[in-house]
Parts: sequence; structure tokens; C-alpha cells
Amino acid sequence: MADSNTWILTDTETHVWHDQFEILLRNLNLPAANRAAVRKKTLRGGLSDGVDLIEIDNGELSLSVLPTRGMGIWKGHYRDLELGWQSPARGPVHPQFVNLQDRGGLGWLAGFDEMIVRCGLDSNGSPTTDVVPNNMGEPSEVDLTLHGKIANIPASRVEVHITPDDPPQITVVGEVYEASLFCPGLRLRSTVSTRCGSNAFTIVDEISNLKGTDSEMELLYHCNFGAPFLEAGAHIEIPASLVAPRDARAVEGIDTYNQYLAPTPGYVEQVYWYEPLADETGNTLAMLRNATADKAVVIRFNTAELPSFTQWKNTAAQGDGYVTGLEPGTDYPNSKPFERQQGRLVKMPPGATYRSEITLEVHDTAPGVAAVQQEIATIQQNAELTVHQEPLNTHSS
Amino acid sequence: MADSNTWILTDTETHVWHDQFEILLRNLNLPAANRAAVRKKTLRGGLSDGVDLIEIDNGELSLSVLPTRGMGIWKGHYRDLELGWQSPARGPVHPQFVNLQDRGGLGWLAGFDEMIVRCGLDSNGSPTTDVVPNNMGEPSEVDLTLHGKIANIPASRVEVHITPDDPPQITVVGEVYEASLFCPGLRLRSTVSTRCGSNAFTIVDEISNLKGTDSEMELLYHCNFGAPFLEAGAHIEIPASLVAPRDARAVEGIDTYNQYLAPTPGYVEQVYWYEPLADETGNTLAMLRNATADKAVVIRFNTAELPSFTQWKNTAAQGDGYVTGLEPGTDYPNSKPFERQQGRLVKMPPGATYRSEITLEVHDTAPGVAAVQQEIATIQQNAELTVHQEPLNTHSS
Amino acid sequence: MADSNTWILTDTETHVWHDQFEILLRNLNLPAANRAAVRKKTLRGGLSDGVDLIEIDNGELSLSVLPTRGMGIWKGHYRDLELGWQSPARGPVHPQFVNLQDRGGLGWLAGFDEMIVRCGLDSNGSPTTDVVPNNMGEPSEVDLTLHGKIANIPASRVEVHITPDDPPQITVVGEVYEASLFCPGLRLRSTVSTRCGSNAFTIVDEISNLKGTDSEMELLYHCNFGAPFLEAGAHIEIPASLVAPRDARAVEGIDTYNQYLAPTPGYVEQVYWYEPLADETGNTLAMLRNATADKAVVIRFNTAELPSFTQWKNTAAQGDGYVTGLEPGTDYPNSKPFERQQGRLVKMPPGATYRSEITLEVHDTAPGVAAVQQEIATIQQNAELTVHQEPLNTHSS
Repeated sequence: MADSNTWILTDTETHVWHDQFEILLRNLNLPAANRAAVRKKTLRGGLSDGVDLIEIDNGELSLSVLPTRGMGIWKGHYRDLELGWQSPARGPVHPQFVNLQDRGGLGWLAGFDEMIVRCGLDSNGSPTTDVVPNNMGEPSEVDLTLHGKIANIPASRVEVHITPDDPPQITVVGEVYEASLFCPGLRLRSTVSTRCGSNAFTIVDEISNLKGTDSEMELLYHCNFGAPFLEAGAHIEIPASLVAPRDARAVEGIDTYNQYLAPTPGYVEQVYWYEPLADETGNTLAMLRNATADKAVVIRFNTAELPSFTQWKNTAAQGDGYVTGLEPGTDYPNSKPFERQQGRLVKMPPGATYRSEITLEVHDTAPGVAAVQQEIATIQQNAELTVHQEPLNTHSS
Repeated sequence: MADSNTWILTDTETHVWHDQFEILLRNLNLPAANRAAVRKKTLRGGLSDGVDLIEIDNGELSLSVLPTRGMGIWKGHYRDLELGWQSPARGPVHPQFVNLQDRGGLGWLAGFDEMIVRCGLDSNGSPTTDVVPNNMGEPSEVDLTLHGKIANIPASRVEVHITPDDPPQITVVGEVYEASLFCPGLRLRSTVSTRCGSNAFTIVDEISNLKGTDSEMELLYHCNFGAPFLEAGAHIEIPASLVAPRDARAVEGIDTYNQYLAPTPGYVEQVYWYEPLADETGNTLAMLRNATADKAVVIRFNTAELPSFTQWKNTAAQGDGYVTGLEPGTDYPNSKPFERQQGRLVKMPPGATYRSEITLEVHDTAPGVAAVQQEIATIQQNAELTVHQEPLNTHSS
Repeated sequence: MADSNTWILTDTETHVWHDQFEILLRNLNLPAANRAAVRKKTLRGGLSDGVDLIEIDNGELSLSVLPTRGMGIWKGHYRDLELGWQSPARGPVHPQFVNLQDRGGLGWLAGFDEMIVRCGLDSNGSPTTDVVPNNMGEPSEVDLTLHGKIANIPASRVEVHITPDDPPQITVVGEVYEASLFCPGLRLRSTVSTRCGSNAFTIVDEISNLKGTDSEMELLYHCNFGAPFLEAGAHIEIPASLVAPRDARAVEGIDTYNQYLAPTPGYVEQVYWYEPLADETGNTLAMLRNATADKAVVIRFNTAELPSFTQWKNTAAQGDGYVTGLEPGTDYPNSKPFERQQGRLVKMPPGATYRSEITLEVHDTAPGVAAVQQEIATIQQNAELTVHQEPLNTHSS
């Protein structure tokens, strides 16, 4: 990697802050930069008041990063294709308007409209109560709210790097602390990067335990898409050894679990658990492709880092949020005590760092989609996929 | 209506925002405009930090609209009379400082200091638990907090219109979304307008169900006044067929339900339910007038839109909030399950819009008050008023 | 006192606000002012976004006041010594990011990183439920969260005064309202002052009951220090008649209650209750000194105002918050109902004002520390200290 140009946009430690910011790569005399740029603005008004938004445009693909929402990825574009979905929530929503404890621990939904939102870090999954040692060292009951806190914590430090390779690379790094006294002490260092002209961007997350004692950790990437990838006849494709329905509602659709309906008023979500297969290095991928297989979004990940995969089907009416979620994770979004019981929580000693990486890739041609299908078939070729007809008690709480 | 001049002050969709804004109507060459103006500022500091406030001055009457608090009306003036009340809360309070779940679901009170605040839209009334379908379609318990959410949601879009009639009309329109995934999906479009030189302003609200499924809706206008209208010997006057006390405490005061005390340390609130009478088009009105009947505020509404009326007497010490509420609503501020049981919730099919309108009018002369009394008498003349001595189980939960 | 120069930095009543502000005392032609200054900035980004911070520098000692966090004192310096501690929370944390009800009522911890934070005013101490009259005058259950609300309420009014004495005095005054309808109605007026060149600053708090009815009040100054005062072998010294352990965990350390460990991973907090002794005017003091007794912080207070004292030992790993708290208060940080039962709540009639004062003083020489030890010995000389080996049921709930 060549030397990079670096700009610090936010640093609460040294009181650095830029309300607005813009770099055009062509002004840096970089090759093939075209309209490539990084722009930051602070949104005002409505539920977005105070939200930091960083737009990365690599010339072909653009994405918006939300430091204010734990370095989530709000929306994007690839050429003329929109990436993301239309949530009933009018986001991006500032955490000041999200009360995680609302509606019996489902308050997280008030802020949920991102294309990629992290669930975690101390906990992920459905609301529950857990028992942890309190300040007096005694077992104490705490509420764990839906999908944890990380998506509603703003980054304390944000940097932009432009690496003058050919093609140049644009990188945004953010640090988010889920840490306070007598509570978990986890730091997320998230690095989002893309090559100019490419059809993909990559997130590398490093999560560190800052405490002097062991910590548990859960992390799931909730990657959400609507039209034009999701439509009647769209499919999910992923190499896997196991698919299982979450519950009775998912059992109803088990024969068509990998296919999607048009917007369907009154549709109730269906969720399927996967055990993904991978190549010899652990690399794998999941694809959502449209009905005619000429448009697709692909999530690449590594099963050593993210061994679990969840498919969320929510093909309700447009006004209710027509969407599907492709969700690689360290485990499944059941309640944390259940995942603990299954031995799926990440254990982190003092000072340890857990690394995970995902890449989002977009295809807008039939050959592009076919090539991904071939990749998936290659991983699947020597293995059997078992589709369970009933929920598994190792997977559903 | 003549063509109007339009300014967009806020639009989160297109990233429009004005931190400050001012129009003097005389600069638009409009007749009779005098000092008429619209001004917007963003408040800073204390509990008001970040609150948008739009002041409308029609030359005789002024009012301040709070886009940040769901398009509530904070305070106003008519000539030398103050409109509103002195709440113990130092407002206007930004929603970031209001936790609706505080104090057993009474957290709404931390932000309550407006002259007109909407209660709703998914729910109104006293805190309770309700059972609604969750994301899995299963019955699930949710907390409904006092008076619902709408007063603590900022408007996503705000416009100002000046209509060059003679006299000119000033209008502010705001859109507020009470909507997120697996939650109610309601949009309020509120239009506040006043004619230059008039003693009144009007609110027209249109509430739409954005979901693909049926919704319930409740809406109450909590209109609150202190001095100089409220004082020892002040009266409420309203044509009605029925008045009933809410509870034992209200029974204590049933003989003087329509009269008010001076500030009374230790006074505990008394609440009365009304079934208002209206003219043949459904139009009716309620008046709070001072002891000598030369100052009054009048709320005009239509019983087809707002069939229920609640009187809230809270003549406690000044430091505790000396105030009375005149509250037309779609129903009464009991718990939502009770109102559902009584068949008083508004049912909204997908895409439906519910309209309601109220006008606030101010009088500062004895003849003005007498004319309103005559209007009330005309509506009442052919009907009996029944004052119940005990709570009705159809009206109190 | 000579006439003072006054600047209003915030007044929500009259819409005064300064985003940035600076006075250098040398520009006022004051004697011995050196680099003495008052500066205010509004922090941006991360969890500090929107926090007002006022830095007072008297030339030798500096401190930062947080109007946004109820006039708490964030950190300070005396010559080359840092005052405060390293909390796992990356503060100062804006109240918008603190949900007091989180983690079973321990949400206050998310914002806790100050050197001096007030606990109160309606309640202090461990989370609990209490029964208070509701709006209908009926007994109603409310949640009281850890250490109450005052540290998460922003000041409505902030002033700076420079008094041109020799040496000049710098004063910051802030007003914070813990008040809303049917809720406590308490106003804190806090005056923070320091003489140029001195090694100390003083806080005078006046708390008023704005209601027409009696109120209860609790107030504790949570004064927190890490290195270089806290270290292996550091001691607390305070004249007292009684020391008692809070619980079984504190019993374990009763023989070394006044000594401190190095950072100790897995250490669970130990808390001791004190009944302080004072001179004939009620004045007393508590000191934290380092192992070699050449560095110390001293808290001076008056037992007529603040009769109770709590020592909080939390010598956990650095990443968990290595810290000790010296906590003079109107009572002990047990649950409010327990303190009520012990008769230790402050009762405030309508209009009453309660005054309390603390001074923080820093020493960086052995003679300075020795002189304080002599002061403590003088107060203790005619009285016995009883160190209880077991928790007292009058002191622990």
C-alpha cells in the first residue's frame, strides 16, 4: 500500500470536529478518480438532527457511513441501482430519538432503516433479561434490549484515508466505545474501504475488550435490501450444510424459503437459520438476486469469523417495510442466554481483539450473477444441504 | 385563495434546513400587514437546546409553533394578554430530555409546558400495558406511556406560506411521522394558519395510516391556560348533554365543576368528562372566561371529528402549575384498552386519512365574551344538560 | 467584595447563548492574573456532542465545569497534577446518550466520568421503587434510578463573574431545574469560584423548593480521584467518630479500609460509611493522599450541611476505572425509602432553600500534606473513632 493521505474528521479526545468536509480525488491528482469523492455533512431537522453522514463515492459505487449510528452503512448506489430499503422510520435516525427500552425492549426499531447495521456488541438478538454481576459483585438482573446498543452509539474518532494506488482506495475509520463503569468495556474500530471504480466495499471490524476481566461478545451484520434486488421471484443463494426454520411461522414457508414474494400486506416475517459452507480458507458468500438473475447483491464473509447466517424475510407491504435481511454473525439472533447455553458467544480475555470482515458486492448483469452462482456451486459441490422441516432446539430459543 | 408565497424551512428528504428565518409581511407589499411576520429560530441551552421555534405574528395575535415537539403550540399573545400557562418544566423542552418511560410511564410530564399539545397518535391517556401483535405476529405486551409519542417527535418537513389575500393569511405546515418497523405507521400533516389582524388561529390536522394493515388512532388536543383567563371565579362554558366526574376526587367538586379557584396549594386535580352538543353541522365551542367575563379563550371544534371533551382542573399553587385544560378529542384520555372496549378508538384502513380541526379564539372585551355566551346558549337551547353526581362506568376506567 | 464584571453565557428565558466564549484576566487589567482565564466551548462529536464546557484557569489550578451535566466538575489540573480519573465512559457524556432506566436503573453509569458529580436532588443512592402521590393524589409506584437526575439536566442559566479583588476571583454560576408537573420542583443554583493563584476552588449550592407543598431532598457530592493521588499505599484521612462497612464485601477489607491497593483486576468495590467529626463551627475535611504523603486532594465541608460521608473504594484495573470516591452528603447513598426510614432526608417547606458548600484543595508538597494531617488530628484529638467490624442496620439497607 502506498502512503495515504489522512484527514481526522472527529476526535473527542483532542476536540477535533468538522461539521462539513469534502475531498474530490481529482484534486489530489490521482489516476482514474473521475467523480470519486468523500463528503461529510451534519444533517439537521426531524429525526436526523445532528446525524453525521459520510458519503463515499468511488466513481461507480457510493455508500453513506453513519458515525453517529455506530459506523452503520445507511444507503448506497451502484450505477443506477439503489442499495438499501425503505423503512417506515424516516432516517437516518439520531440516537437521541431512540429509547431502546420502548415497546418491551423493541425500541431499537425506531432507528432501524440502514442497509447494514451492526447488532451487538455485548448482546444481540431478541429482548430478554440476563443475570450479570453488578457493582457489588452480586448476580443482578439486567434488561437486554433488541440487538444491543452499538448501532446507537456515536463514534468518538473518525478518519478518512485516501491511498494513492492505481486505482486509489478510499477508507473511513471510526472508533465506537460501548463502555462504562461496571458495564461491558468494548471498543469497535471499523474500517470501511472501497477501490475507485469497483463494485464493492469492505468493512473490517476490530473489537477489543478494554476491561481487566473476561468479556462476552456477539456481533451480527444485519444487511437489508429492498427493490430492485428484492422482488417477486427473487432468490437467496448461499452454500450451506443446514437450513432450519426459526418457528412455526417459518415452517409454513419452508418449501420456498429461498424465494421471495411481491409486497404482501399482512405478511408476517419468516426467519431461517443457516450453517454456511466455505472454501478451504473459510471464505464464503451469500447472494440476493432478482427474479431474472441479472441484478444481485452479494455479502462475502469468512466462517472462521462469522460462522452463523440468518435469513430474514419480511415481504410485507411497501409501507410496512418490504425487505429481506442477509445476516452473517458470530451467532444467531436468539436471546443471549440461549446463545450462551449453546456455546456460541465469543469469549474475550482482557486486551483481546476480535476481527471480522464483510464485503458487499453488487452485480448488474446476468453474467456477473452467473459467475457468483458458479462460485457458490463450487463451494457446495462436495457437500449436502439439509433443509430441516421443523425448528431445531439447538438453533431456536 | 390567491397564490401563496412558499418557503421550505425543513425537509429531511432533500436536506433543507434553515437555522434562522424571518419574513416581514410588509416587505412582501401586502395590505394591512403592519408588524405581521414569521420568524424561526433554533433555541440553544438548557432543556430547550436544539428546539425549533416558529413565531407567527398576525399583527394582533402571535403564537409559537414547535416543529421539534410534534407541531405543538407553545405560547402566544393577543394584544397584551398572554396565552398559555407557567409549567414547572422550563420549556420548550427538547425530546432528547424526555424519557417517556420515566416515573412509571409518566415521563411525558417532563416536557409538558405547551398551550396546545397533541396527545396521540397510536395511543393517548393514562399509562397502561396493551397487547399488540409483535414482529412474529404473536400477541405481545407493550407499555403505552402517558399521552403517547406524537408530542416528542420532530417534524420532518416544515413549510411557511403567505397567502396574499386581504387580509393576508400566514400558514405553517409540518409533517410528523410516528412510524417504524413492526410499529404504528401514522403521519400527521398539521396546518396552522391565521389571518392578519384576527383574534384567532386554526389548526387542521390530517392523520394518515401509511401501513398495509388497519390501524387504531387516538387524538386529543390538550389546550392549557393559566392567568389572566384562569383566576378565582373563572368559568368554563360549553354546550353539552352530559357532564360526569372522572373519580371520587372529581365528585367532591361536582357542584362547582364549571368554576375555578384561585391558586390553592395542595389542590389535587379534578377531571370532568363532557358529551358536547353542536349545531346542525357539528360545529361547537368551549370557552374559558375570567371572573368578570371580559376576557376569554374559546376552542372551536366539530363533534363529527372530535366527539369527546375533557375538562382538567388543576388550580394548584403557581409553582405547581396553576392551569386548566380544555381538551377536545376523538375520545377520552382513559387507558387505550378501556377506550377500545367502549368502541371509541378511530379505526383507519390502509391509506386512510382522518381530518380534525380546532380554532383558538381570544376575546378581551365584555361584549366579545357575551357574544360567545349567546352562541353557546343557542346550541344548548333545545337540549337538557345532565350533570352526573357519580362516575360513569362507560366514561371512567 | 469589589464590583464584579458579569457575562451571561446562557439564559433560556431571554434566549441568550454563546457557543464560544473567552476572557483573559490580563485583558481586564487585573493584578496577578498571569494566564488566568475563563473559556467556554461547545463540544462536538461522539458522546460529547452538544456538551457545554467552561474551563476556569486561575493561573495555578484549572477546572472544567459542565453546565450540560447539572454543573458537575469534569476534570482539573493543579500545576502538573491531573485532577479526576479515567472512566471507561468516554466523556463528558451528553445526557441525550444516557438512559437512566437502562440496566435495571443503573443507566446513570453511562455518563459517569466526572471528578465531582452531584447525586440527587429528589433522590440519591441505589435504584429502587418508591411510593409517591400521583396526579390524582393517590399512592403510586415510581422507579428511582441510581443517583437521581440532577447530573443529567442542563443548566438553564449560566453566568461568569470576575471580581477585581487582589487576587481576583473567578466565579461561574449555573441554575438547573429538576422540575415538572406532578413531579418534584427543585432548583439548584450552583456557584463555583476560585481565587487567582490559589490551590482550591469552592462550590456553594443553594437548592430551593419551588412547589406549594413540602418536598424531600437528598444531595451527595461524588468526588472521584485516580492517579497520582490514588496509588498502592495511598490513604484516606478524615476525622470521624464512626466507620462502618456497607456489606460483607466491605467487611473483608475492614482492617485496611483507609488504605488503597494498586490497580487490581477483578477487584469488587468496597464502601464504608463515616460519621465525620468537625470543629466547633461544623467545619471538617477529608483527604486522599498518596503513599509518600507529598500529594493530596482535600474536600472541605460542613457537617451542619453535609453530615454524612461515604468512602467508595474501586481499585479495579485501569480499564475498569481505577478510582476512589470521597462523598460528603446530606445522607448515605442507600435507597431513598431506607434513608427516609432513618430520618435522614432533608425536608423542605414551600419556598425553602438548602445551602451546602464544599471546597476542593490540592497539595503537592509534603509540608502541605502534613499541615492537613495536623488539622485532622486537631479535630479528632478529643474524640474516639469506632471502627465497626460488621454492617450497621442504621447505615445499610
